[in-house]
Amino acid sequence: MNFKLKCISCEKIFDENEVEYTCPKCGKRMGTLEVIYDYDNIHVKKSDFYKTGNIWQFEKILPIKKDSYRTNIEVGGTPFYTFKNFEGVQKLSIKNCGTNPTASFKDRASAIAVTKAIEKNFDTIYCASTGNAASSLAGISSTSPLKTIVFLPSRAPKAKMIQIVVYGALIVPVETSYDKIFDLSMEIGTENNWYCRNSAINPYLLEGKKTAALEILVQNDFKAPEYLFVSVGDGTVISSFYKGFYDFFQLGLIKSIPKIIGIQAAKSNSVKKAFENGEPFKPFDIEAETTADSICVGTPRDVIKACKYVKKSGGFFIAVEDEEIINAGFELARKTGVFAEPAGSASYAGFKKAIDEKLVEKNSHICLSITGNGLKDIKAFENELNINTLKYSKADIMDYIKNWR
Amino acid sequence: MNFKLKCISCEKIFDENEVEYTCPKCGKRMGTLEVIYDYDNIHVKKSDFYKTGNIWQFEKILPIKKDSYRTNIEVGGTPFYTFKNFEGVQKLSIKNCGTNPTASFKDRASAIAVTKAIEKNFDTIYCASTGNAASSLAGISSTSPLKTIVFLPSRAPKAKMIQIVVYGALIVPVETSYDKIFDLSMEIGTENNWYCRNSAINPYLLEGKKTAALEILVQNDFKAPEYLFVSVGDGTVISSFYKGFYDFFQLGLIKSIPKIIGIQAAKSNSVKKAFENGEPFKPFDIEAETTADSICVGTPRDVIKACKYVKKSGGFFIAVEDEEIINAGFELARKTGVFAEPAGSASYAGFKKAIDEKLVEKNSHICLSITGNGLKDIKAFENELNINTLKYSKADIMDYIKNWR
Repeated sequence: MNFKLKCISCEKIFDENEVEYTCPKCGKRMGTLEVIYDYDNIHVKKSDFYKTGNIWQFEKILPIKKDSYRTNIEVGGTPFYTFKNFEGVQKLSIKNCGTNPTASFKDRASAIAVTKAIEKNFDTIYCASTGNAASSLAGISSTSPLKTIVFLPSRAPKAKMIQIVVYGALIVPVETSYDKIFDLSMEIGTENNWYCRNSAINPYLLEGKKTAALEILVQNDFKAPEYLFVSVGDGTVISSFYKGFYDFFQLGLIKSIPKIIGIQAAKSNSVKKAFENGEPFKPFDIEAETTADSICVGTPRDVIKACKYVKKSGGFFIAVEDEEIINAGFELARKTGVFAEPAGSASYAGFKKAIDEKLVEKNSHICLSITGNGLKDIKAFENELNINTLKYSKADIMDYIKNWR
Repeated sequence: MNFKLKCISCEKIFDENEVEYTCPKCGKRMGTLEVIYDYDNIHVKKSDFYKTGNIWQFEKILPIKKDSYRTNIEVGGTPFYTFKNFEGVQKLSIKNCGTNPTASFKDRASAIAVTKAIEKNFDTIYCASTGNAASSLAGISSTSPLKTIVFLPSRAPKAKMIQIVVYGALIVPVETSYDKIFDLSMEIGTENNWYCRNSAINPYLLEGKKTAALEILVQNDFKAPEYLFVSVGDGTVISSFYKGFYDFFQLGLIKSIPKIIGIQAAKSNSVKKAFENGEPFKPFDIEAETTADSICVGTPRDVIKACKYVKKSGGFFIAVEDEEIINAGFELARKTGVFAEPAGSASYAGFKKAIDEKLVEKNSHICLSITGNGLKDIKAFENELNINTLKYSKADIMDYIKNWR
């Protein structure tokens, strides 16, 4: 595979072996890298791709060697549901990445990270995570030759912790925030020469994540939707959607790029603030707080890329309250059959708000990205529920049923 | 679709409209029905099927009308992983049905049940369940016009309850066993003229479930494995594997039927006991107890079918202790990348035992059915774990990592 790496800020171009993670001059925050391809020398056509294929069908536009390690676990090929005339919107699609092996979108990035770690001869891989990236890395690396160490805040949902331990990774739950454990993990990882699967820092993760955008295009017969709604934490996932659309656009496989709408929780809206402060984009860090743990990020690592790409796409950001996110979770499940974790239902909450506030055209095709299964974080819904246990009595049970709705 | 229904005991044949659930003469337990097809008039060939298609690709051998309701949710098309030389076994495959929409095998049955309820003009569908069938029905029916009511023991795992409520079904958690709530639900359902999605009672569920067997055959290039290991509760899932293999065998698409090995928890081994008591098979009910809640069944409803089919296949039953099931869950995740709920890892535990005790040929192709995602029942693993939270101290964290393994 022939590719280069380009700094998102100074635009300096590097060869693969010249730099491991970020631009030495611009640093970890401002200097995240883009993977750039020589599109003229990539020969692909629409019929090379399948609606139900896994991520490796996109090998020719991924930064990996032809014969290097591939996980045996099926990543990608997730469902794409389409609804006509949904709440007055001409066409609504849901890309449900909660059916990935560890029930998270993040598996797309983990698969590439594991391949790169092995290509580069590392024996240990690590990440810091709010939970999903960690359980994803544990799952995808479980059958690889790598040792796996994951750092996460001790408040991460229990289900994600249990996944990690069952998969056999070393779990390091620390009494601190995601933002702090991120920095500490980098210090420890660098000292020990482990491969870093930290969001944004590692330029290849975004390339794995972009496969969701590529799948949407294949599943929608190479017609780009007008809008793509996606929840935003670190800014890598949203950037990856732009990159996927951009790659297919450059390759002549689609005619336009969707407007990308980023959804943030109201009290975890650092990327939105940076975007709205305008160019030149600068980080705008906060103390983040939201029930949607996967997007609870106050120091977003891919903030520059996210702002630049959303701007290029003609998109914008929306903030939603936690209450709207939880309500959206119920409505999404009932109207589309998709049970999403709060960070997933946040995009539905944003969609509802955009429709209410007339921020998007209803006469269009809107696609929502759902990034994780609701089973990964049931606490958020549990607080809203009041499940009454009934005694074994037919009369009581019938009364209870009759009072339903 | 042209099919008949045949009593598993007296072998009387019924037309679809002659009988709703079970044989009037032989009753609910002994008289569960088989769906029988006129194979000579079903015209299918290998190239009609796809390795990644959903269950509707098998429409021609499903008991549903050509133009009736189909759920929009993607059911089936689940991964099939193959490992060569696994623990000395020539070829091991894992059919992972935990990636279905509600993270359970049961979605295959729910999809057919929802279609049949609508074909038959019911407005309400119900089931009794240990948890998975209920959360599955809630999910699959969420986007249908049906009202959904699910009865389950109040000790069912919380994650499954939350799924149900989020999907908008009415949850009826009763302080009693699965076996008792099963009977009570039938009484209430019959009185109110709701459609019954109770395991075994409804003959069409098994036809939905058999699609897992059909997928295995398509994914393995129409070569039947020598053995199929599957965990057993009510006996419908195991019966469905036989039925799927049998259908393709009758249609001339495969040359042999795998030996089917049923795995039960040691203290929930009612089907095993009935099988080992020999013919004529009779129920052998017990008070069941196991940490693998999905197979905690003391009064199995499809016991006769399960025994007859396993016998025909040349298979047998194995019992495993709860401790073996949990240990198998860890090993399965670490060696294959599949995080299964305990009822799923039970088949791996049975596989290990069968190898140790030389009950199967190692020089063969063995396939394990994994029926649910581990995220659906984390409590079982949680009890085994001791996750220590660390203070934010680099030195302490490094000490902890160094002591790993």
